[in-house]
Parts: sequence; structure tokens; C-alpha cells
Amino acid sequence: MSEINPAPHLRVDDLLHGGLRIIQDPSAPCFSVDAVLLADFARLQPGERVMDLGTGTGILPLLLSQKQADCMLTGLELMPQMAEMAAQSVQLNGLTARITIAQGDIRTCCAQFGKAAFDVVVSNPPYFKAGQGRENGDPLFLAARAEVHCTFAQLVEQAAGLLVPLGRFYMVHRAVRSAELISGMETAGLHVERIRFVQPYAESNANLVLLAAKKGGRGETQVLPPLVIYQSPGQYSKEMEKIYGYDGNAVSGRNADR
Amino acid sequence: MSEINPAPHLRVDDLLHGGLRIIQDPSAPCFSVDAVLLADFARLQPGERVMDLGTGTGILPLLLSQKQADCMLTGLELMPQMAEMAAQSVQLNGLTARITIAQGDIRTCCAQFGKAAFDVVVSNPPYFKAGQGRENGDPLFLAARAEVHCTFAQLVEQAAGLLVPLGRFYMVHRAVRSAELISGMETAGLHVERIRFVQPYAESNANLVLLAAKKGGRGETQVLPPLVIYQSPGQYSKEMEKIYGYDGNAVSGRNADR
Repeated sequence: MSEINPAPHLRVDDLLHGGLRIIQDPSAPCFSVDAVLLADFARLQPGERVMDLGTGTGILPLLLSQKQADCMLTGLELMPQMAEMAAQSVQLNGLTARITIAQGDIRTCCAQFGKAAFDVVVSNPPYFKAGQGRENGDPLFLAARAEVHCTFAQLVEQAAGLLVPLGRFYMVHRAVRSAELISGMETAGLHVERIRFVQPYAESNANLVLLAAKKGGRGETQVLPPLVIYQSPGQYSKEMEKIYGYDGNAVSGRNADR
Repeated sequence: MSEINPAPHLRVDDLLHGGLRIIQDPSAPCFSVDAVLLADFARLQPGERVMDLGTGTGILPLLLSQKQADCMLTGLELMPQMAEMAAQSVQLNGLTARITIAQGDIRTCCAQFGKAAFDVVVSNPPYFKAGQGRENGDPLFLAARAEVHCTFAQLVEQAAGLLVPLGRFYMVHRAVRSAELISGMETAGLHVERIRFVQPYAESNANLVLLAAKKGGRGETQVLPPLVIYQSPGQYSKEMEKIYGYDGNAVSGRNADR
């Protein structure tokens, strides 16, 4: 199960979810708490085919493989060196029969994989529009943070194309873009049926939003009580401790919280 | 100030906001807590011209007249008997110089009042689509509860038409329609810039949503922590007590909470 010998500059972190481990490059984008929240928010049924658009380290397929043992997962990643590292993590965990990492462009993924090829699409996309936010010039960080390779409108259009009728789309994004995100998803035919905002503290404005949509859905929109991350500075809320596993350090190896 | 003698079947309630009183017919739609929340949520600047689409009892112009002393308010109401009663409340409070109650149809209000005639539009519209929800057959209750006279799309189109560029729209509605509402407002050119969900209890899903939008706005969307109505059964939260005035009974005469 571990014939993989990651290059010396890479790091292997224990995710403490079903014994999962993940390979990351400390000098490249590492996964963040946001992916862990999205994996917790998504709901998978047995036998479903699941696509992660912009998989990065492969964190979402890895976590989702443990959440629903009977599903087939694909992670699409534009950057060859990230895709290679994610594929190594899949091998390291002995999950090659269930998780496929593919190199490719979200903007053409319907052509690459075929229309209606997936029951579920998940994504933790770049949060900033091109030209906004911190951009340190490194192409890997830029691609992970900003919509330089794919706009939000392109993402949801492709996600809708990949999905079967009534297929589901799960996403985490910045709360300050909520109106644009919801409107864009509705325009793409992805009807938002469940919303959960994430607040750093009980009295804070939301900084993240978790959205669940259904292709061609027409149902009511369930708005859950917000997920509060910290009950006091440095102290996770009970719910966050539960999401992380046990003690707030169960999922290690992620970037600092935003 | 009170040469008004309401007909014997009518009731005069003290709103306890700046000494305001309101005339209501116990057998017709009375105002609800939702209008009080919306009046609290809206922000008015001195000198602004404010329109309330579907004013009913006139509760919103009355409350807003006390929130911002220097503004001109208009309440539009389709049902002649409701408009007449609202106009009597305005007279009763000596506010005829600042509040105008007009009888008319939301669907044609841009033609009635002219385009770009208002700085702010507020609305507590019917919550249910035609054919949905409780409909007891009484035309007044039906008009107040269901979109039998004006759909949501028609409402926001007219609201956008009434507003000056960068004019603001404030609305309260059912949280389960959030995705449709936000998408519809964005489509009408009303960009949602502030959202607050309302939850009966801290652990409940939201049942109402307060939305603030700007015509032609392009800013970020601020998502506030939810407003929680009850801290325990029958006991208002501190914030609700503050919104109501003093002791949770400050705004009297409203319908039961939904």
C-alpha cells in the first residue's frame, strides 16, 4: 500500500480520518479547513459518481472516500505538478480503484468527461476574481486563489453540464460573494436547496458559505443555523471539534484558517 | 391631531414607538412582527423619499417616520379599505405632511409615480405563490398572503424602476425562498449587499430573511449573524426586546408570530 516514496521536499500528513494520509509540498498550496467543512457538508449516496473540480492536493476525494465507502471519485486538476502529487496521495492510501486524479481544464471538462457523467460535483474553487486579493506571483498559488484560469460562471456552467438531471453540486466559497454565487448557480440551472454560513465567532459576520444545489431542482431552500468555528479565541466550538474528529487537531497538515 | 373617529369595529393600538398609534380591523390582516423587523433593518438618510410597496395597515411608513424624522414616505396599497384605514392612521398620528397613502397596483406603480421617483423602496410582500399556503378565501387575507395580484418578479422589477441609481431596496420574506429571491433581485438589477436571516431559536433553521439591495450596486455582500427571536420558549432574546422597545410588548397589536 505504500510503495510510494514521496520526493524529499514533500511532506506526508496524517488526516486522522480513517487512517488517511496526504502528500503536500510546503512550498505549494496546501489544503485548508474549508475543504474539510465542505466534505462534512456534502451528502453522498452509495454508488454515486463524484467529481471534484479543482482538486489541488486531492483532499476532497480523499475525505469523501471515507465518508461514503461505496462511491467512485474523480479529482480534476489543471496544474500537472499538483495532479501528480494528488495521484501519489491516492496511491499512498491504496485508493486507486476508487479515486482517479485527472489533469485537465475545468473550462473544457464536459468535453473531457462527457455530459451527465456524474451524480455529484463538489468544488472548493478559487475565491477571488482575477486581479483581486493577494497574488504573490507564484502560478500555483495564483491558480488556487484567483479565477485566472476559470471564472465562477464557467465553473457552474461546466458543473451543470457534468451532472445528471437532479444531480447535486456542493461548494464552499466566500460569504461576501453569496449573492453573486447564488444568482450564478440559479442562472446555470443549479437550484440552491441548502445554505449554511460559517462564522468565525457567534457574533461575527459570516466569512464562508456552504451551498448545496440540485440541477433542475425546484424545492425550498433550507437555511441552516450558522456553523461557528471558535467558541473563544483559539478554542474550537463543539461542532468544529466534531467535524475535525476528536480534539481539534484531527485533520492536520492544513493551511492556517482564513 | 385626533379628529379621527375610527368606526366602532376598528381597534386603535399603541405602537409605543414615539407615541405612534395604529388603526386595525380585527377581521382584516393586521401587521406582523416581520414588519417591525424590517423597519429595524432598513437604514434611512435625511431627506430621502421612501416607498412602501403593499403597505397594508401602513405599519412600515409609520415606524419608519419615527426612525428617520427627515424623510417623506409613501405607502401604496391595492385594497381600498386597507388604504383608507392606513390613511386614517396617518391622520390619527398627525403625519399627513410626511406620509402619503396611495391606492394603486404595484404592477403599474412606475407609471403611477414615475421612474426614479424614490431613494428607497421597502416591502413586506405576500409570502406565498398563488395557489400555495393557507388561503381562506377572504380577498384581503389572500392579497396579503399570496402573490395573487403581483408576483415577486413583478415586484422587484417595479421596485427597480421606482428607484434612483444606487437607490436601496429593503425586504423581509420567507427564508425558504432565499435562493429565488436573491436570484430574482440580482436579475432585476438590485444587488444584494446585506443579508440577515431570522431564526426562531439559536438552533433552528431560518424562517425569515431580511435583504438589503442597491440598484446597480457592485459591492460585497455582508452576511450578518442571524437574529434569534427567542432565547427560550416564550422569552424574547435581548436583541428582540431591544427591537420591540423595552419589554417585548412594546409594539402591540400585531398578529401572532409565524
